[in-house]
Amino acid sequence: MVRRTGRRPGNPDTRESILSAARGAFAEKGFDGASIRAIATSAGVDPALVHHYFGSKDKLFLASMNSPIDPVDIIVEATAGERDEIGARFVRAFLQMWDGPRGSAAVALLRSVVGTEWTAKLFREFILTQILRRAVPRLDLDPAEAHLRVTLAGSHLVGLALARYVIKVEPLASAPPETLVAAIGPTLQRYLTEELPGVFPQV
Amino acid sequence: MVRRTGRRPGNPDTRESILSAARGAFAEKGFDGASIRAIATSAGVDPALVHHYFGSKDKLFLASMNSPIDPVDIIVEATAGERDEIGARFVRAFLQMWDGPRGSAAVALLRSVVGTEWTAKLFREFILTQILRRAVPRLDLDPAEAHLRVTLAGSHLVGLALARYVIKVEPLASAPPETLVAAIGPTLQRYLTEELPGVFPQV
Repeated sequence: MVRRTGRRPGNPDTRESILSAARGAFAEKGFDGASIRAIATSAGVDPALVHHYFGSKDKLFLASMNSPIDPVDIIVEATAGERDEIGARFVRAFLQMWDGPRGSAAVALLRSVVGTEWTAKLFREFILTQILRRAVPRLDLDPAEAHLRVTLAGSHLVGLALARYVIKVEPLASAPPETLVAAIGPTLQRYLTEELPGVFPQV
Repeated sequence: MVRRTGRRPGNPDTRESILSAARGAFAEKGFDGASIRAIATSAGVDPALVHHYFGSKDKLFLASMNSPIDPVDIIVEATAGERDEIGARFVRAFLQMWDGPRGSAAVALLRSVVGTEWTAKLFREFILTQILRRAVPRLDLDPAEAHLRVTLAGSHLVGLALARYVIKVEPLASAPPETLVAAIGPTLQRYLTEELPGVFPQV
């Protein structure tokens, strides 16, 4: 058997038992409360092995959720151009992920999230620690406004994913990506960077 | 035992077996393909009894999905004022439904929709027949644009419901309704009634 390079070393059973222990710990104690040490103990392995397999706690969390993306990647892509194109770039990067090879994993994740209270809690931790805490600072927003701005944008994108890829509502399901960029891009632009009277106190 | 008036007459077992037969028929054959007659036969009752219990096929469908609302009601409310307030009125009516006594049924519906391919299919039929076919004509939109406009708005609202009521992401989950009306109202206004360059061909 040919071994693939780097990414998934070691015994697949060990890897799976670490992921299973991580899922339980993150759901029960939250991201901050779950320690690599306790996860390792629960999986019956040495903590060094957890670091060796997954690198950081963030990466272990993303792997335990089967997340097809690291949200930081999408934000890096969205912020790589002009600031007044951030909305369009966001929608485009998001659709590319769902339309690409990682799309089916994303559908599975979204289905599982909504299915039970348990996974909803995990997803809440995902949004808080991976999106709001790690990714959002890169958007360079007013900290007092950043979380509401980003969750407004995020709620729209999650609804789009649900309608287009899970429920498959037409004509949304078959609309060309650039049509959706033209429709939804300005919305995200407004949520992220424009004045929102009635939402935040006016200066 | 005191009988409630009108709404749920007859034997609860009969009612439940009609609903169960309806769910199966709507999922398998779609709204148009499922006949009251076939549903009655499958439930072992007379078709007249189905009409007696549920009124129309639309109402039977809403009941079989445990839909907490009739989408026509929300559209009637949203269109009851000025046309340039339709976005704000939509968001307000939507939040009132989710924040009200019917909210928990709505959460249950949304969870079940995403859970399996089977219920996703039922929900697709719900959107097509109950929202696009029955409710949308009341919005008085260009028929060539109506379905994309409404599904854009709808995808945002479903995402909001998922984030606020199912996943409970802060600060969205605790935001006052009027904050969300101020944030999201203009988006729906644009999707429903304004020009959308790059989405529809310009006249």
